This record gives sequence, C-alpha cells and structure tokens, in this order.
Amino acid sequence: MSASSKIDSYELLLTQMEALLVSNWVSNLANASALLWEHFHTQQKPQSEVNWAGFYTYNSSKQILELGPFQGKIACQIIEIGKGVCGTSVQKKQTQLIVDVHEFPGHIACDAASNSEIVVPILSENQEVLGVIDIDCKEINGFDQVDQKYLERLASLLASKFEN
Amino acid sequence: MSASSKIDSYELLLTQMEALLVSNWVSNLANASALLWEHFHTQQKPQSEVNWAGFYTYNSSKQILELGPFQGKIACQIIEIGKGVCGTSVQKKQTQLIVDVHEFPGHIACDAASNSEIVVPILSENQEVLGVIDIDCKEINGFDQVDQKYLERLASLLASKFEN
Repeated sequence: MSASSKIDSYELLLTQMEALLVSNWVSNLANASALLWEHFHTQQKPQSEVNWAGFYTYNSSKQILELGPFQGKIACQIIEIGKGVCGTSVQKKQTQLIVDVHEFPGHIACDAASNSEIVVPILSENQEVLGVIDIDCKEINGFDQVDQKYLERLASLLASKFEN
Repeated sequence: MSASSKIDSYELLLTQMEALLVSNWVSNLANASALLWEHFHTQQKPQSEVNWAGFYTYNSSKQILELGPFQGKIACQIIEIGKGVCGTSVQKKQTQLIVDVHEFPGHIACDAASNSEIVVPILSENQEVLGVIDIDCKEINGFDQVDQKYLERLASLLASKFEN
C-alpha cells in the first residue's frame, strides 16, 4: 500500500467522522473507534496488525484516565497520570509515538501481543486534557509521522464536540 | 460446537465480566463489548457470524437511546423509543429475539449485512431502562433461548454497577 493511499484513507476517515459527529461524546468515541479499526484493517502491514484502537477519557475529579469505547480485546480500566504510554501522553500533553513498547519505561501491557503504540492527547481549546486516542500494533514500528498528523487532526475534531 | 460449550463460554464471560466491573459505566460497557465479541467469535456458525455487539444507553431527559461502546462497524447514534428492534425492546421492557430482521416492521438497518438480532433491555432494580445490549448476526436465526438467558444475566450484572 502506497503512502498516498494511507493518506487517502485517513482523509476519508476524517470526512466520515465529521459527518457522524453528534452531541454525545461517548457515541462519537464509539463510532471513531469503528472508523479507526476499519481504516487500519484496510491497510497493509504493519498497520493491518493493529490489535487495539480506542479511547481513554480523563476524569478530572479523580485525575485518572478511564477506559472508553474501543475495538479489540479487554483493556485496563484505569490509568494513572504519568504511568505508561497513555499516562505520559496526558502528563506531557504530547503525542507519544512508541516504536517498541518493551523499551518504554513503565509500559502497561494490557495485551501481550502489542509491540508498538501511538497515543494522542485530546485537548480542549484551552489545552485541558479530555482524553487520549490509543492505538496498539502487534508489529514493532507500527506508526509514523503520517499517523501522528492525522490522529492529531482526529483528536481536534473530537474535542470540538466534547460534552461532559 | 455443542450446546454445552456455548453455555461454558457464556459462563466464562459472566465470570470475567464480574471480575472486570468498575464504578465507571462506560468502561464496563466497553469491556463487555470486547468479551461479547470474543465469545461469539470462538463459537461455530451461526454465532461466529455476529457482526455487531454493543450497547445503546438510555438518555432519560431526551427519552432516546444513544450509541454506547460496541465492536463492529459504525452505527446509528440515536434511536427513538418504540422504533426498530432496540426501541421496541425499551418500550416493552422485554428481550427481542428476532429470527429475521427483514420481517420486523420498522427495522433500522445500520449494517445491511445483518440478518438476525437480539436486543436485551438493561433494567434497574426498580425496572427503569438504563440501556440495551444489542447483538446483530449475518445469519438468519442467529440467536436462541440460551443467548436470551445469558444476555439477560449480563444485563443484570451491568445494571448492578450503573452510575450516571
């Protein structure tokens, strides 16, 4: 699969997501998980080896990440800020593009099959964390700058419809 | 696959769900979707042909069902009470076991591949609707009384941890 078709597929995903947005945050994350799963599984390796695609939402009163809608196998329900790839992404308010999760200090292994991961923070207009997009891949080096760019655009789109 | 192994798989699902329950309702529905997906895809036909497994939650102020966590392809975000199989299940507060969705008046076709469906209401102790479990199958006659029995037990388990 060429780089342009990966880009085309992401562009389609964003167009579809925009059309699907409703006022319910959980509904949006649920359909976004389905679109992400579909997107990755129309790609070639390593992206077709994505084994988890979904969301953690930020509970500001408890200051933890809580499991949201996803596609894949059962996952950890609670992640502390600063812990693992998701918790680090929230603490730094930055995307974490992890080539090999086994080299990430304090990696939380929900699914032993995962070898690489990308986590993108979902930030409000005033830079408050609303949650994260979390994608795991069975292959090492599953994600690149193209994924980062488009997943950050997806995060912005989802943030625009946030309601608590 | 024999009937007993279907029962064994459901018993395992309930045990796993009980162990996974946390105070966050969305997290519970997200992991329940993953367990249901895993369960059906370890079965033989017709159950291995399940193409959507997840939840709609009841918005009591708007009096509508809203899309919750699920596994499968993108789905309708809002269902009115009394409409389609999900809306009928809420209106009647009863499980709907639909052998062929094309014969169900007013069936809402989110995925054209679906041919049979089971919808189980999630009811509080005082019989208020909290949401529904919704499972679609590509085969006609995908579900039976065993599914009804175990999905109703799953609904009770999830209701016991409901928080708004």
